[in-house]
Amino acid sequence: MAKISPLAPDSFPDMPTVPGVRMAACACGLRYKNRCDLMLVELAHDTSVAGVFTLSTTAAAPVEWCRKALSGGVASALIVNSGNANVFTGKAGYGVVENTVEAVADIFPCRPSTVFVASTGVIGEPLDSGKIIGSLGALKDQLSDDGWKDAAAAIMTTDTYPKGATRTATIDGAEVVICGIAKGSGMIAPNMATMLSFIFTDADIPADILQQLLADAVAPSFNCITIDSDTSTSDTVLLFATGQGAEHEKPGTAVDPLLDDFRDKLNDLAIDLAHQIVRDGEGASKFVTVDISGAEDNGAARRIALSIANSPLVKTAIAAADANWGRIVMAIGKAGEKADRDRISITIGGHLIAEDGGVVDGYDETIVAEYMKGDDIVIAVDVGVGDGKARVWTCDLTHGYIDINANYRT
Amino acid sequence: MAKISPLAPDSFPDMPTVPGVRMAACACGLRYKNRCDLMLVELAHDTSVAGVFTLSTTAAAPVEWCRKALSGGVASALIVNSGNANVFTGKAGYGVVENTVEAVADIFPCRPSTVFVASTGVIGEPLDSGKIIGSLGALKDQLSDDGWKDAAAAIMTTDTYPKGATRTATIDGAEVVICGIAKGSGMIAPNMATMLSFIFTDADIPADILQQLLADAVAPSFNCITIDSDTSTSDTVLLFATGQGAEHEKPGTAVDPLLDDFRDKLNDLAIDLAHQIVRDGEGASKFVTVDISGAEDNGAARRIALSIANSPLVKTAIAAADANWGRIVMAIGKAGEKADRDRISITIGGHLIAEDGGVVDGYDETIVAEYMKGDDIVIAVDVGVGDGKARVWTCDLTHGYIDINANYRT
Repeated sequence: MAKISPLAPDSFPDMPTVPGVRMAACACGLRYKNRCDLMLVELAHDTSVAGVFTLSTTAAAPVEWCRKALSGGVASALIVNSGNANVFTGKAGYGVVENTVEAVADIFPCRPSTVFVASTGVIGEPLDSGKIIGSLGALKDQLSDDGWKDAAAAIMTTDTYPKGATRTATIDGAEVVICGIAKGSGMIAPNMATMLSFIFTDADIPADILQQLLADAVAPSFNCITIDSDTSTSDTVLLFATGQGAEHEKPGTAVDPLLDDFRDKLNDLAIDLAHQIVRDGEGASKFVTVDISGAEDNGAARRIALSIANSPLVKTAIAAADANWGRIVMAIGKAGEKADRDRISITIGGHLIAEDGGVVDGYDETIVAEYMKGDDIVIAVDVGVGDGKARVWTCDLTHGYIDINANYRT
Repeated sequence: MAKISPLAPDSFPDMPTVPGVRMAACACGLRYKNRCDLMLVELAHDTSVAGVFTLSTTAAAPVEWCRKALSGGVASALIVNSGNANVFTGKAGYGVVENTVEAVADIFPCRPSTVFVASTGVIGEPLDSGKIIGSLGALKDQLSDDGWKDAAAAIMTTDTYPKGATRTATIDGAEVVICGIAKGSGMIAPNMATMLSFIFTDADIPADILQQLLADAVAPSFNCITIDSDTSTSDTVLLFATGQGAEHEKPGTAVDPLLDDFRDKLNDLAIDLAHQIVRDGEGASKFVTVDISGAEDNGAARRIALSIANSPLVKTAIAAADANWGRIVMAIGKAGEKADRDRISITIGGHLIAEDGGVVDGYDETIVAEYMKGDDIVIAVDVGVGDGKARVWTCDLTHGYIDINANYRT
């Protein structure tokens, strides 16, 4: 396994149990040797579910399944494997999903249409459902309420550490918990949803409201990160609410004030997980925040921010600790959004480098060069035309990215 | 200087003189030591001119100048420096352009509004026009009609070899010549025009017709290449027609049959120069052709082709000689254009790898793996929904790209 990212958190968080959620993980040998690659989650009766998925036109068979299953609004189980994404595998690939969910439904038992499934790993190769199905009995026997770290590890591919986050929130005076895990390291670019993340809460929230809460939480978190501009075929974020925690009044709508704290905590958890993915970006040595202001509108600001965050030239300069504002100007220019070249200002780490369309008088690069040696870089740009704002996160582009991706499949 | 690209042509072509065109190059010391970085071209009286420029919203001061100068349709001189792009240099940067063209106009003499100018190199740093202006006298004394290779070398930045191409064409029975030079290696992505290229002919063609011919030639050549998806702030292609060659009837329109052969040869020369840029892509070890068919329309086909050609995951796989069709499927999917996942077919080097949405039965990867070791890779994809077609060219993404771009400015 690869060396752990230098940007990794110190440790996997201490995650509490979520009443109504039990999980287990094992090594079923799909691709990796002696490494957990399969996880199963059992959910309490009548758990509500929300989901957002990749907009890729070549989406995975499991994504297709989940989109249909979501219409029921109820989830009984979740099965996720790593090592093979079950993408571009034709009708046979969809058959693999059907066989898998039927086998999962049999062991609990529950209706197949309430079983959710995700797969991540290599694209275009047939997935052997036999290995998954053959492991289900043993997995069921191992279900426990505190297997978060093993579950998070089982869904990793090129990730160098398991990703988890937890928050507690108050609804109507009752304390509820939210626990999430995620995976992602390459092929990460926002397009409504990115990578895999599974979030669980014991709150009692109907599926339609849960869906709105999840969509709102994904927009400024998972949808605002990019590692390499490549959007995955398997992007899936699922949010499950078991309703098995402390009793509370049921919210009537997604904007019900009852949910104010829950909404804040869910959003915060989504940003936490999204940041953990960027911090595990393939080959990453620096975590980069790009803040845009002064754009025509928020959408324009986001496109400019992503143009900077996806520019190979900006990212290689950051890797070299080079405060290369010229490449930032280039990336603003190629975004195709309104920008007033002669009013652009650029700040790096709070140090004003350029304003009014040129480098500031007496600019001392040594101070910024020192800042660029750190591993947390903030670039702020005002493009001088309006009130639009956006913030996205990315990492630098290093030799590590080439090493990983010139060797992934072979 | 960096090692010459392994994809470079064997030698700089033997370029004939173009009546009405004289040139000179020198080292004026703008950035590089002991390396030509300035070139001057003198054009015959009443030379007509056409140009296409970057669509970047942070375009260079010289681009701004040339756009205005182009309205006159007449060119007397061209001055180009490397080492500093004179971009994001505010009003002072535009002043540098004005001082430079006035000094050039003085030495010939000619009207400043007929002097064209381009700069390439680092962005965001003040350009010292004194070094350019101080070299003009000596340059004028050295003007000759056969300095193509030195001129092509003087405009290089991270290029590893000078780029030139020549064709002869027949108009109304008269033989005319077309000679072009170009530079470009990184920050190369099509957006109406890319990089710098200067093309000269002794044909007698009015400026408005020349403009249409150039736009048509740029579309399937310079606008169909990408090295790193980063669009330059300085992209400029200028086409000069001196009218000093063999006499021929003047064409009446851009579609005049008189121009059939000239048009073919000009298009061919533009593709030749565009390919030379891709073959000098920063760190490139393989030249890659991406052919798309079966798209909704030609525009959709082009966007899918560029999505594949710009994908870091596709490009790193090619660098590793990995026929990773899964990443091609991913790149099709993220393009956002219609594609029928279950009818997609993928061919690499003429070997059918996938059809009907999955890998072909009995696919033997060893044959394709052998092909992938070569340095000329052709990927053909049919997305199964319509008649749209496109072809773009790119290179692979290697450690060399990181080496070059993590060290360019520092």
